[in-house]
Amino acid sequence: TVNPDLASERQMASFSVEKLTAWLDGGAEQTRLRRAVVEAIEGDPVFSRENQYFQSQNERYEAAVRKAVHLQKKMKEMGWSENGPELKYIHRAVAGDIAFLLHRVFMRSISVLGSDEQIAKWIPLATQFQLIGSYAQTELGHGTYLQGLETTAVFDAATQEFILNTPKISAMKWWPGDMGRSATHTVVFAQLYVHGKCYGIHPFIVQIRSLQDHSLCPGIIAGDIGPKMNFEHIDNGYLMLQNVRIPRENMLNKFCEVQPDGTYITRGSEKINYFTMTSVRISIISSEAVMPLMKACTIAIRYSAVRRQSKLKPGEQEAKILDYQTQQEKLLPQLAAAYAFYFIDEYLQELFDRGYREIQRKNFDTLPELHALSSGFKALVTHYCTAGVEICLRACGGHGYSLLSGLPSLYTKIIASCIYEGENTILLLQTARFLIKSFMAASTGQSVPPSVTYLAAVKPSKCPAKSKMDFLHPDIYMEAYRHVAVRLISSTAVKLQDLIQSGVKKHEAWNRCTVQLAQAAKAHCHYITVKNFAEVVEKLEGKAGIQKIMKHLSDLFALHGIFSNTGVFLYDGYISRAQMDMVTASYLDLLATIRKDAVPLVDAFDFTDKSLNSALGSYDGQVYQRLYEWAQKSPTNKQINPAYEKYLKPLLHNTLSKL
Amino acid sequence: TVNPDLASERQMASFSVEKLTAWLDGGAEQTRLRRAVVEAIEGDPVFSRENQYFQSQNERYEAAVRKAVHLQKKMKEMGWSENGPELKYIHRAVAGDIAFLLHRVFMRSISVLGSDEQIAKWIPLATQFQLIGSYAQTELGHGTYLQGLETTAVFDAATQEFILNTPKISAMKWWPGDMGRSATHTVVFAQLYVHGKCYGIHPFIVQIRSLQDHSLCPGIIAGDIGPKMNFEHIDNGYLMLQNVRIPRENMLNKFCEVQPDGTYITRGSEKINYFTMTSVRISIISSEAVMPLMKACTIAIRYSAVRRQSKLKPGEQEAKILDYQTQQEKLLPQLAAAYAFYFIDEYLQELFDRGYREIQRKNFDTLPELHALSSGFKALVTHYCTAGVEICLRACGGHGYSLLSGLPSLYTKIIASCIYEGENTILLLQTARFLIKSFMAASTGQSVPPSVTYLAAVKPSKCPAKSKMDFLHPDIYMEAYRHVAVRLISSTAVKLQDLIQSGVKKHEAWNRCTVQLAQAAKAHCHYITVKNFAEVVEKLEGKAGIQKIMKHLSDLFALHGIFSNTGVFLYDGYISRAQMDMVTASYLDLLATIRKDAVPLVDAFDFTDKSLNSALGSYDGQVYQRLYEWAQKSPTNKQINPAYEKYLKPLLHNTLSKL
Repeated sequence: TVNPDLASERQMASFSVEKLTAWLDGGAEQTRLRRAVVEAIEGDPVFSRENQYFQSQNERYEAAVRKAVHLQKKMKEMGWSENGPELKYIHRAVAGDIAFLLHRVFMRSISVLGSDEQIAKWIPLATQFQLIGSYAQTELGHGTYLQGLETTAVFDAATQEFILNTPKISAMKWWPGDMGRSATHTVVFAQLYVHGKCYGIHPFIVQIRSLQDHSLCPGIIAGDIGPKMNFEHIDNGYLMLQNVRIPRENMLNKFCEVQPDGTYITRGSEKINYFTMTSVRISIISSEAVMPLMKACTIAIRYSAVRRQSKLKPGEQEAKILDYQTQQEKLLPQLAAAYAFYFIDEYLQELFDRGYREIQRKNFDTLPELHALSSGFKALVTHYCTAGVEICLRACGGHGYSLLSGLPSLYTKIIASCIYEGENTILLLQTARFLIKSFMAASTGQSVPPSVTYLAAVKPSKCPAKSKMDFLHPDIYMEAYRHVAVRLISSTAVKLQDLIQSGVKKHEAWNRCTVQLAQAAKAHCHYITVKNFAEVVEKLEGKAGIQKIMKHLSDLFALHGIFSNTGVFLYDGYISRAQMDMVTASYLDLLATIRKDAVPLVDAFDFTDKSLNSALGSYDGQVYQRLYEWAQKSPTNKQINPAYEKYLKPLLHNTLSKL
Repeated sequence: TVNPDLASERQMASFSVEKLTAWLDGGAEQTRLRRAVVEAIEGDPVFSRENQYFQSQNERYEAAVRKAVHLQKKMKEMGWSENGPELKYIHRAVAGDIAFLLHRVFMRSISVLGSDEQIAKWIPLATQFQLIGSYAQTELGHGTYLQGLETTAVFDAATQEFILNTPKISAMKWWPGDMGRSATHTVVFAQLYVHGKCYGIHPFIVQIRSLQDHSLCPGIIAGDIGPKMNFEHIDNGYLMLQNVRIPRENMLNKFCEVQPDGTYITRGSEKINYFTMTSVRISIISSEAVMPLMKACTIAIRYSAVRRQSKLKPGEQEAKILDYQTQQEKLLPQLAAAYAFYFIDEYLQELFDRGYREIQRKNFDTLPELHALSSGFKALVTHYCTAGVEICLRACGGHGYSLLSGLPSLYTKIIASCIYEGENTILLLQTARFLIKSFMAASTGQSVPPSVTYLAAVKPSKCPAKSKMDFLHPDIYMEAYRHVAVRLISSTAVKLQDLIQSGVKKHEAWNRCTVQLAQAAKAHCHYITVKNFAEVVEKLEGKAGIQKIMKHLSDLFALHGIFSNTGVFLYDGYISRAQMDMVTASYLDLLATIRKDAVPLVDAFDFTDKSLNSALGSYDGQVYQRLYEWAQKSPTNKQINPAYEKYLKPLLHNTLSKL
């Protein structure tokens, strides 16, 4: 039975949850397909996450391998192909704790960087899991700065081999997933040396474990890097190479090759590598950032409609905590952000697909823009969603801190997304570099990519809003965001120029502007997110019920951003003090409005109880009952107290006589 | 040997680290005492934390009990008394992972709330650990709102007993530390009923486990609430009471009593309870918030002086990441905050001691102010320090995410401090209530407590700064903070009045202002922190070297706060656009200045390597070597791969023929 406090929330919905879900999925047909995949996975006991919160690192690793192996079987059984429409739902259904994700990256590197012969040799084996691949790029001493990698691969013409070495401890490969305990092979990135000359970083296929007994190969030192904040299901590993010899054919050689006599040849374009990074960054936005935030919102909002604490009105029943303004102000902007970023992901996917079609026609013109957007949005969205999950966790009070709420695991996992695939600050600065260049080009009348044409347009100097209602016009708030983005980009460009003209070296001037450059890049992405949300809402004409609530969310996302960053809007008087009061009033009003639909809005995400795996967030809202039942399953309640005999008994044994 | 990159940082120090340490400790004598205690604890293998990051929940619990029991012995051995000067250093040295902290709360409740007979009966037993106590207040359904607790205690005059019950699942005690597996007794808070009349919440001593064999007593259902985000060393528990009968004498009856015939009597003042909460909130600021931030800063700053990544100048060696402006902007404000809150803690301690002396003279006048300050600062400091630890963690990139960095454990523990001992938002609103009251009083000329007299003073309308150097005058920035605090408090008071005058009910008006009230409370505490830091610096006259660097930190803390919250300063034009540019310029200059002393400034905190327990933060800076050595100790590297036989071998066994 559904908790009546939650049931009543659903009766009040201003729109059809089922229709919103179908629209989010891209049609009712997609919803059916998604649910079928989720049902097939969740109905299979091998994929159960029931005891996940009680598992040790070993147990989580073993379960992840079991699931990965079983998934292959399952996919065959169900007739789901690697390129089928089901694929994107499988990940959602498995919900993360699965091994061999790096095996996929291993395969992708070979497919993209390998010759046809290399592909023919390795891909079938990998597809069948007859070897387990990893991807060894990051080293103890180098993450983001790939040129600094220290592993070496020296060509030995006499034997037609490369000799791989880890020359010092900081050169040890560190972090590669699936490498600590599972992988038999890995793609190693190393500095290529031929006849004493360094040709930079290249990829090599290296076997690291025996296929017969899984022992480490000669010259290989490898193992697990130990516990992390989460990801215990993955055996992130270390790898040291001591004079490991591999055949010449093991260098991935689609774009460059060392010939038998040591001649080094490059061919084709390296820009495609660039594109791979872009694709990975875009692909993680949905699964690793937006989905976790959607889940956290679902858990925290459902719980807040069930949890009653203290009184709003004297003499009345205790109030649902969702009825407190401060609780609304914590959760509802996160809900709006989850929607905003869901739509930005769609926007980026579309842009990417278009870019990809161009690239297939050998047109690389869209690459700089795609790179800038994928970098900036990876940083903005992972940062924002991480903060959002943390807010949801804290908004659940003590119970949010219990692993059984599901929130700690979401948090300790999503925070990693701010670091991997490019540390966020560095990514923002890459976007900033593109913005500064575009701004310079635009100011001298040159043409710039579509996402930055706004930098050239003439801008009004004051916000025209006259009442708090005016701030519910997308034109008003979009223009405010645009104004701020232009101002931050242009003023930093000017500061940069001024420093250089005053004699400061270029790299030093850049460093002195980086705090502001990162701000400018964020403002740019924030503006595009606000604009995109407003455009999505506009296109919803004809779907009145959904459009209305999406419009509220779009407004909330925009006004929350202004309310939380008043300074950049007030700075040059674009928004006046009186107008800022209107923003605040409109913003606080919106909280009360959206609060009414808060539960239906998270219901529409359509997460199953199993996928939430949360005692606080289940559809039926029976939170206390479930916390109690789940706690009883804890191994600590099934074992003899390990401290009793040794420590407690000696203390207590002669108390009785005194009591 | 010390990493040369770290050694060189220490050679550049502008002040004597040893002198700064001694000054922070309150004198060289204190430093010696602290080091002696730390050495005694860390030198004792029972207190080792070497394998902490690899331990299971059970292992951590067992170790925590072992340490708690051993500490008693150790203290006797060393001649350290419970009230001795060593006590505050013991906690620092043990570094958190110890059991029976709730046993102390059990004892404190009896000492404060119990009669002389009760104290005489229970305290000696508890002191000798001949029973293990816990403190059962929080329930599944109620945390902050104590009046809502649902456990009942019904007086039975016939048997002279109280009958305790958990009438429904939400009434189950949930979270009490040491209760899940250890405690034999606990203080239960329950609604007292006598002859059908409810007298509200009262404390009762209840035995929950047998002293003979530690089995649960009749009518008791208790256990462990399962895994948390951290605190696995503590057995937070649940407790259900089913017609549990306890003698009438077990109600703690210093302030109220049920007489044999059921007559209910109160005596004395209940204000002292109020004071206990205040004391706990102040006591956690240092140990649970400021210390962890200091540790996180130590780890992240030392690591940032050793980690080299990418190039600042083309053609040169890779740069220390601490030399990037963005990295400085992440870490140095946290360092300044750690100092700022270290001093605020001293300020609060002093205030508290003074208040306590008054209370002993039966003067309770300082209580409202103390309550407001302890609530507001508990919220501000735990919030700020939690955010700071997270920033430090993320600033270390991937390696920060490894448990071996020490940062994840600091984070997952400190975040709990935002929730326990009063959820932060609720605490801020309690401070806000005091501020609104004080503001009203001040505006009508009534006298107000010292910390809020500034609300009455006349204020200038514009910041007088004329150059970026002016913003290094404490008078200038203190006045800016004061101005903002007054404005936020007064404008919210006006909004509240307006709403009420327009016919909105009082409680509803309050709810509609809570977002702004919480902001106002933060602004008040922020102002006091800035002011206090400036005053500490001023008093440093005569200690030129230390004063200079502390002045920089005080300036940085203040300007960082303005730079990060420009809106509240720009809003009414108190700081103009041109002045805000000066703030930014001064702020960025300060980063470069303080960066030079960053390592000595964390060295001065004087944490031992053992207490940091971090592969990244050790004094010698040998980060890569240590990460590698520690990873090898991981049990995952000592066991047979649990997935090999079952899952990997079947996949790989006939690959060889194909390769």
